[in-house]
Amino acid sequence: MSQPTPERFFNAINAYQQTEAMKTAIELEVFTAIGEGNTTSAAIGKRCKAAERGVRILCDYLTIHGFLAKAGKQYSLAPDAALFLNKHSPAYIGGATEFLLTARLREGNARLTDAVRKGGTAIGKGTLEPENPDWVKFAEAMMPVMKMPSEIMAAELRKGGESHKVLDIAAGHGIFGISVAKQNPKAHIYAADWKNVLAVAQKNAQAMGVGDRHHLIPGSAFDTDFGAGYDLALVTNFLHHFDPPT
Amino acid sequence: MSQPTPERFFNAINAYQQTEAMKTAIELEVFTAIGEGNTTSAAIGKRCKAAERGVRILCDYLTIHGFLAKAGKQYSLAPDAALFLNKHSPAYIGGATEFLLTARLREGNARLTDAVRKGGTAIGKGTLEPENPDWVKFAEAMMPVMKMPSEIMAAELRKGGESHKVLDIAAGHGIFGISVAKQNPKAHIYAADWKNVLAVAQKNAQAMGVGDRHHLIPGSAFDTDFGAGYDLALVTNFLHHFDPPT
Repeated sequence: MSQPTPERFFNAINAYQQTEAMKTAIELEVFTAIGEGNTTSAAIGKRCKAAERGVRILCDYLTIHGFLAKAGKQYSLAPDAALFLNKHSPAYIGGATEFLLTARLREGNARLTDAVRKGGTAIGKGTLEPENPDWVKFAEAMMPVMKMPSEIMAAELRKGGESHKVLDIAAGHGIFGISVAKQNPKAHIYAADWKNVLAVAQKNAQAMGVGDRHHLIPGSAFDTDFGAGYDLALVTNFLHHFDPPT
Repeated sequence: MSQPTPERFFNAINAYQQTEAMKTAIELEVFTAIGEGNTTSAAIGKRCKAAERGVRILCDYLTIHGFLAKAGKQYSLAPDAALFLNKHSPAYIGGATEFLLTARLREGNARLTDAVRKGGTAIGKGTLEPENPDWVKFAEAMMPVMKMPSEIMAAELRKGGESHKVLDIAAGHGIFGISVAKQNPKAHIYAADWKNVLAVAQKNAQAMGVGDRHHLIPGSAFDTDFGAGYDLALVTNFLHHFDPPT
């Protein structure tokens, strides 16, 4: 048993600085800049339109936290950052910050003391309002994050036989249904979500060449008649919002 | 070499939630409540005037992050939390959140992208303004954190001989000079800091019985004449604000 130490407490209190540093690095495209061969703080600063001093301090911080490596004055990308945080990588997921750090989510967390007192969110209805625009951000930001997992899922599902009529509940970006449609030319997808969110799914379906087999069921998942006769129902973006008893 | 994973990225993006959870737990006195023997979420909620559901979710989160342990429905304090986060412990440092999470520090971090672009803080003069009230908060919040270290420091300093005239630059809470005075009845302390901050140091010196040997030198550390003839100069709260070249 090691000695008690206040380190863990101070780490928690200062943990928000990791969030701010990562958000800034994504916004300024620091990882992308380094991936393009800008390896000194001066070169990164020029590429990112930021001060050399600011970039150096930020990159040193990111080095301490394992996202970069530093040798002499040269920064390089750690493997995680090279694969996921460089915009030129097909596995880029930096855009997820736009959903995960929306003002409303931050505000809800900033009022956590009120929320714990009350036993629920302190900011009105939280994320449950009809056509809450945060779910449009979700749909836009998380599609690239879920593209590869959705393709793996669709390939696994094919092993169970070909589905012709597929319900995609809380479709969001629609990528799970779209991936099923891409791998199965006979599948028709019926995507259910708020109307404003489905606009994103529809755009994605059209861009990926399955728009004619991608149908929309707008409305609340709790009130909508989804129809019948489905071979498969996807609930990928949905069940984790609820307690096990629900 | 392990496979690249987005885990570190998502941990950084969500790290601010650790900060909010710890701030809330301190504000609601969750650790103190558990230390007093309230071990279920219902009992903690009653003691902390918070909803049982909110307390349960918060305590589960704190358990995951190692500040609590949970057995059945009973929470208990991890050793770090028992020593440092229970208000009944003489080593309690939870009050440090009041300085480390002042609105101005949070705002400076929230505008980190602007700060990196500019190469300096995006919120005016930052923490360098004369009589900035954040340093009063520092003095009030950090004294309990530094009390034990200052006593160890004072004992070490005595080994080098007894000092009679001691300069305490950027005294803040004053605890470093005060600890020297307590261990050395002949020492007179001259504490330099902003006038509003010195009021805190003076109060502490009086409370600890060395007020008559604790003298004040108000003003900026860069412009003030500290006088001469000192046997010892303390710069405990000061040098770490500067680059090595400075």
